[in-house]
Amino acid sequence: MHMTVLMGTTAVVVGAGVVGAAIAGRLAEDGAAVTLLDPHPRSGASWVAGGMLAPVTEAWPGEEALLALGTASLRRWPAFAAGLAAAGHDPGLRTDGTLVVAVDSADRAELATLADYLATLDRKVEPLTGRELRSREPSLGPAVRFGLSVPGDLAVDNRRLLDALLAVASARGVRQVAARAVAVGPRLVELADGQLAADIVVVAAGAWSGALHPALRDVIRPVKGEILRLRARPGSLPPPERTVRGLVEGRHVYLVPRDGDGLVVGATQYEAGFEPGPRVGGVRDLLADAERLVPGVADYVLESADAGFRPGSPDNLPVVRWLEPGVLAATGHGRNGILLLPGTVADVAELIREAR
Amino acid sequence: MHMTVLMGTTAVVVGAGVVGAAIAGRLAEDGAAVTLLDPHPRSGASWVAGGMLAPVTEAWPGEEALLALGTASLRRWPAFAAGLAAAGHDPGLRTDGTLVVAVDSADRAELATLADYLATLDRKVEPLTGRELRSREPSLGPAVRFGLSVPGDLAVDNRRLLDALLAVASARGVRQVAARAVAVGPRLVELADGQLAADIVVVAAGAWSGALHPALRDVIRPVKGEILRLRARPGSLPPPERTVRGLVEGRHVYLVPRDGDGLVVGATQYEAGFEPGPRVGGVRDLLADAERLVPGVADYVLESADAGFRPGSPDNLPVVRWLEPGVLAATGHGRNGILLLPGTVADVAELIREAR
Repeated sequence: MHMTVLMGTTAVVVGAGVVGAAIAGRLAEDGAAVTLLDPHPRSGASWVAGGMLAPVTEAWPGEEALLALGTASLRRWPAFAAGLAAAGHDPGLRTDGTLVVAVDSADRAELATLADYLATLDRKVEPLTGRELRSREPSLGPAVRFGLSVPGDLAVDNRRLLDALLAVASARGVRQVAARAVAVGPRLVELADGQLAADIVVVAAGAWSGALHPALRDVIRPVKGEILRLRARPGSLPPPERTVRGLVEGRHVYLVPRDGDGLVVGATQYEAGFEPGPRVGGVRDLLADAERLVPGVADYVLESADAGFRPGSPDNLPVVRWLEPGVLAATGHGRNGILLLPGTVADVAELIREAR
Repeated sequence: MHMTVLMGTTAVVVGAGVVGAAIAGRLAEDGAAVTLLDPHPRSGASWVAGGMLAPVTEAWPGEEALLALGTASLRRWPAFAAGLAAAGHDPGLRTDGTLVVAVDSADRAELATLADYLATLDRKVEPLTGRELRSREPSLGPAVRFGLSVPGDLAVDNRRLLDALLAVASARGVRQVAARAVAVGPRLVELADGQLAADIVVVAAGAWSGALHPALRDVIRPVKGEILRLRARPGSLPPPERTVRGLVEGRHVYLVPRDGDGLVVGATQYEAGFEPGPRVGGVRDLLADAERLVPGVADYVLESADAGFRPGSPDNLPVVRWLEPGVLAATGHGRNGILLLPGTVADVAELIREAR
């Protein structure tokens, strides 16, 4: 597409997370007059997330389609990030790779299963002993006994990313409106008080998408998770240099470093509808598991504990398709919304091109 | 004192925590023209605190003077709270009493020491088995094996209290100024940019008091502590009805209920100067210990984790005296600032009366 393809077209994008903001910016780049709706920008899953770009370490037997999708989207990430940086909004892509580590024997067995599975797919991962892990990442504690190096799995600062996408969208003339959509249909978005007409309506409302259109009802559900933001102090042991994912007595935890001594620790995952606020038990587990892997975090500042809602789908694959003429869905990204972002934007652009 | 005693007198109170706000209100009631200085009202120890009024359960052999002071101040609390309520600002005094509970054998031995000590002072406390404790407070978990009932130890909602004191002070004409004092002397308060003259200067700046006057240097020090605010959800097991203090493997923890399903969990205590922000390790201990005593908190919302600085003194007793003519200190209350508040206000009023 180029600048004039959507000239004269109006679009409303519902949801100003990374998916909605990036799509809005893309449609505006192609010439559309775009409105981006969100009652509470910078509060949803995109803002709360950890920012891992991790198709390999998220892989699991039976989810080959997701691995393929994630791998394809990850390939687009360097150029995607460079494009934002060139526009003056560097999203903080980190290319230091990922270590996956295990604590007890069952955790180690699960990691071995992952390694074996990846070998059948010709994905290279490097098995490492506890000693080898600590020589690469001295912050890892004595409980860590086994691990894998996955240099290709990256991370991005999701808040800088969202800020970047919103800034680029604004610079391209996208009108941002703080309003809540209650339903969408062909050429129409119903608001709590009023409605908006548009040639193209994009549903990118994450976990809230299920309520907006009949075709998404019972398809998109919220999957709750807790996440913490820590910060090392002057004098603290430094955070890991790359993303550390761990299995601690069967619980999954990840530690994603940020510029400026920040460390994001996530994430629990359970079905509790839109239950608000972080649970004591979830925060307890994240703190304990993070300390087990990286003991030096004990004197870090706990800056925040948040809960978010991933947009879950029945097969863990995103829903990126026309729901009916004029109404396009881009939701259901589950744990992988940030990883799958460049691929989703490309797919949406292609779907719109085909429909014209 | 009555309305005209301080007519024509000017006063500056440094620090708008509960001590400073209450003294400012009292001086204004007596006719003084009062300025209340604080660079960040509602952020210090008074705001962060738990609000226990607990001279007995805080007692320890060798600290008889503190116990006597606390007991005397506690006697003033019902009338003090009633006075605020009558002015339309109920501070939420809770008179349900306190249970002190122990988990392991060493904890139980320490509680027995406290009970024996209190018996020598003719303080009545009632020893209770785990079963008896749970029949009174069904939220207590199976790990709780022994305890004491201390019906006379109360609690107050410290944030409502501070709001009440600031509102009453304002209603009496106290001028609140958001500025930082850097030093005080006779009839003078030095600000970062400028100075204020006053007949009476009161230093009530909590942990920050030590920097304001030579006589407080090396006397008042910050004693850091972490504290959590939880909230039960609809469907959660209800919080305890009275304050629960516990010893969990040697660590002290308290759970203070609030109206509206709130529960305050505190507090760690350690020497780290003015190190900002809650430590991961402190929050981890509070969560684990609270869950050990009251397992139902696991699904509560963790609303906040904060750090505060108690104004410590060498003998754990407050410093309420003239530092030099015209400069009065009311600081150094340590863990007990809210308990000791009514007594401190009365003592300050008496010191000013004597000096005239």
